[in-house]
Amino acid sequence: MNPVAVEDRIALEDLLNAYCAAIDARADADAAAAFFVSDGVLDNSSLGSPIIEGRAAIAATITGMFGSMAGLEHYLSNFLVLEANADSARTQCYVQAHGRPNQGEAFAMRGVYRMDARREAGAWKIARLGFSLPS
Amino acid sequence: MNPVAVEDRIALEDLLNAYCAAIDARADADAAAAFFVSDGVLDNSSLGSPIIEGRAAIAATITGMFGSMAGLEHYLSNFLVLEANADSARTQCYVQAHGRPNQGEAFAMRGVYRMDARREAGAWKIARLGFSLPS
Amino acid sequence: MNPVAVEDRIALEDLLNAYCAAIDARADADAAAAFFVSDGVLDNSSLGSPIIEGRAAIAATITGMFGSMAGLEHYLSNFLVLEANADSARTQCYVQAHGRPNQGEAFAMRGVYRMDARREAGAWKIARLGFSLPS
Repeated sequence: MNPVAVEDRIALEDLLNAYCAAIDARADADAAAAFFVSDGVLDNSSLGSPIIEGRAAIAATITGMFGSMAGLEHYLSNFLVLEANADSARTQCYVQAHGRPNQGEAFAMRGVYRMDARREAGAWKIARLGFSLPS
Repeated sequence: MNPVAVEDRIALEDLLNAYCAAIDARADADAAAAFFVSDGVLDNSSLGSPIIEGRAAIAATITGMFGSMAGLEHYLSNFLVLEANADSARTQCYVQAHGRPNQGEAFAMRGVYRMDARREAGAWKIARLGFSLPS
Repeated sequence: MNPVAVEDRIALEDLLNAYCAAIDARADADAAAAFFVSDGVLDNSSLGSPIIEGRAAIAATITGMFGSMAGLEHYLSNFLVLEANADSARTQCYVQAHGRPNQGEAFAMRGVYRMDARREAGAWKIARLGFSLPS
């Protein structure tokens, strides 16, 4: 069923679990951005956001998000490895997100994360993370 | 804890993840039905639907559902293998579902999927999938 | 990525899946409490509840909860092993909970479970389970 060994299947799921834990903690933008490879891409263009390229720019974007949000929760599920070779993988999962801006109303959003991952020095990192609303 | 090897535990969870991805994509009913064994059973009788037997009938039911729904999302969690032997397994998970019919109001539903799975030619397939509302 | 073997990573996640299945079934408080070690701790102090210590006291608390609730659902996700050694582990996951008291209104709650686990006679058990509202 899985195009990767079970250790990689779990490591890839946990990569996104750990990234979301860092984002939702709203404490350390650099630590959150460190889950990306140095040339990683954060693509929330489906929500009208510019595509962010590079870990430094991602850290700046996350810093901005931490500054504007009083609460963030990303409930992940339905993880799948769609294809993979030795050091890269294309994955998807579902997300139910809740946000509470400093200004304005709390919101809820559901959709799909598509994550391309790359193995660097033995550890999986996020190469590209894109969000889509449900099809 | 688990009555199966970890590879099977993950393969069984991913079987249902992949089936729900196919259902939620609303694109290819035959591909979705192909996750079932040829004599598979789809049991939504708890919702008043007839029990569907056989992959062809399941494909027809899924085709009908694709025709009536403008949106489908199945958020899975809490996967458990309840019992298993070499080539069959009884599993359950929780599901939070959202649907948007072409006609009428969007709805949300929560409950439990009980999946019996059978291994055929080395691959796990759905032998029976039943939905229940929360107890 | 993971500080434990994949078999333990899955066994720890399934420990909490199985505990929540027992809780949500509202049928057998002793069976639910048996997922704890004998000196286990149930800490819902973030909700104003006293901290419950010991399996017998936990079983009594669960019995009380079963008596007051007509429905319970705990949707788990985002499981992570934070640290571990051979026979103990510190983990967290997210939970989306729904409750329906016998008296009063149904409620929904989201947050984080922090579970310390201990391996006894080869099986992982809950040493401490604490709930926190989202940060």
